[in-house]
Amino acid sequence: MHSCLKFALSIFLFFIAATSHAADPLPSWNEGSTKSAIIKFISKVTTPNSPDFVAPEDRLATFDNDGTLWCEQPIYVQVQYIIDRTRALAPKNPDWQTKEPFRSVLAGELNNPELMTDHAIGELFAATCSGMTTEEFESMVNDWITTAKHPRFNRLYTQCIYQPMLELMEYMRENGFAIYIVSGGGCDFMRPWTDRVYGMPKQHVVGSTVATRFELRPEGPILLRLPKINFIEDKTGKPVGIHHFIGRRPIAAFGNSDGDLEMLQWTTMNSGPRLGMIVHHDDAEREYAYDRRSLVGRLDHALDQAQERGWVVISMKNDWKSIFPPASPSPTTP
Amino acid sequence: MHSCLKFALSIFLFFIAATSHAADPLPSWNEGSTKSAIIKFISKVTTPNSPDFVAPEDRLATFDNDGTLWCEQPIYVQVQYIIDRTRALAPKNPDWQTKEPFRSVLAGELNNPELMTDHAIGELFAATCSGMTTEEFESMVNDWITTAKHPRFNRLYTQCIYQPMLELMEYMRENGFAIYIVSGGGCDFMRPWTDRVYGMPKQHVVGSTVATRFELRPEGPILLRLPKINFIEDKTGKPVGIHHFIGRRPIAAFGNSDGDLEMLQWTTMNSGPRLGMIVHHDDAEREYAYDRRSLVGRLDHALDQAQERGWVVISMKNDWKSIFPPASPSPTTP
Repeated sequence: MHSCLKFALSIFLFFIAATSHAADPLPSWNEGSTKSAIIKFISKVTTPNSPDFVAPEDRLATFDNDGTLWCEQPIYVQVQYIIDRTRALAPKNPDWQTKEPFRSVLAGELNNPELMTDHAIGELFAATCSGMTTEEFESMVNDWITTAKHPRFNRLYTQCIYQPMLELMEYMRENGFAIYIVSGGGCDFMRPWTDRVYGMPKQHVVGSTVATRFELRPEGPILLRLPKINFIEDKTGKPVGIHHFIGRRPIAAFGNSDGDLEMLQWTTMNSGPRLGMIVHHDDAEREYAYDRRSLVGRLDHALDQAQERGWVVISMKNDWKSIFPPASPSPTTP
Repeated sequence: MHSCLKFALSIFLFFIAATSHAADPLPSWNEGSTKSAIIKFISKVTTPNSPDFVAPEDRLATFDNDGTLWCEQPIYVQVQYIIDRTRALAPKNPDWQTKEPFRSVLAGELNNPELMTDHAIGELFAATCSGMTTEEFESMVNDWITTAKHPRFNRLYTQCIYQPMLELMEYMRENGFAIYIVSGGGCDFMRPWTDRVYGMPKQHVVGSTVATRFELRPEGPILLRLPKINFIEDKTGKPVGIHHFIGRRPIAAFGNSDGDLEMLQWTTMNSGPRLGMIVHHDDAEREYAYDRRSLVGRLDHALDQAQERGWVVISMKNDWKSIFPPASPSPTTP
């Protein structure tokens, strides 16, 4: 009798756990129209016999990274990487002290308009992100990303990721979605850490690529990163990149800036159930507030089109209970 | 007692089935050193505590398509597609009757050296494979591939695939491998049918790409195929494309020509267990026999390096019990 009771109790607890889990797959999202739009969408595409049912192999969702999955202010993380690499390489390049664009970076004059030209950015990129093998670059990114901290939040960049979006990605995965990152950031800058941080394996990361050359060296074959951008995965490049890398058209897309406009159009302006969402940064207190006039992550045309196209605008301030995951224990704090 | 006997019998039969299945995952492969090389490799990388154990997320294998998974003689299938499209479009282009390279194609003079230049191939490609949306192209490929037949075997090209390689792919999938096609053929030419024919979903097909432009038209967003090759996924382009698309380095690679040389090098010339295999077409009776002097699928340098690099050369004639899958029932034959 005793063991029968235990058995009944464990069954009961199992159902409680299962039910409460099913009841809130998005615990960091406040109740409201945004959260219910997500849940309604997932529910209708996964309900067999629903007119909006979508076969699992067609459940594809794409997520922008900068500003959608992690913090992109006050400066794109990859730009900070380039700045830090420039500083690290400066002792070996004494001429950089007087030569632009390096001089401005080393002097911390990041608002210098000379830095904003394509030529300047290309020079900085070439100096810091090319000339090494892909394996060397991966190891350099790994070294940096496991130590570099956000200047305001004083936590690793990989901890300045959005807890509600982590829950959303997991919720979609559990519902049979294949999910991909589709970012203007470099493939090779993201792939070293996306699996650990987002559960997003390398082959699910679509991004900008650098020209790369195969060489058979005496020590073995290598891929050399060349000082030349191969493809920019941004704006109109996002649907193009999705087509090249994945070969299928998403039914859901998540972005936060005009760089995501064409991905949102390509995803949602089609027949069948579609979901487009925009993370709107309106929370200066807990994160940042910016949109139409921001240099980083400008959100203007996509915001204008949101209503007409039926895209859901996520208010970071109102829709998200928390922004970042709980802080990881750090060896430097008690 | 009767039902007990039935139960015992069914258990017994289940074990027989399970055991015999486990005993021969490659029924279309003859016994011998080639087949055992495959089985030994799969066994050692999947045996926990083996010094050669490879974690499932690192079990990546890449397969060339033309000549490795399906027949590439007497002419690459995609080239036949271009020829057939040229013929189909000829009535609307009367000037092609006198204008090269179209004239030669329409006259069936396929050995005309004028056809072999990059310029001629580019013109034929532009005329037949660009100027339409990606969705229109997919539908055109689908229409063709479901009807076009191999001139010698008189069966659909998608039935001129190698049964032993189908078994090998399935065997690797069952053992936790992620498997990809990495082909010089066009992504958009292969993806419409690879899932149905090989069980290879679109996002697992890496191939050459055409430049593509996003346009927001009144009827909706489209991707327009431009008359310009974006990337050739062949020779040194194979490791580069593997890095861009997948971001990981394979531990096994399968090819049949010098176009696969660098993929084989990149895959096998590294620490840890590695498997490189070359399908050698030495079976003129059941398929074709060609290697060093063939225009299509030339196998020369890769064959020279096979022994030194430890690549296993598959003799189609001796290692394969059968070449193609059993013929599908066709409505045109009784």
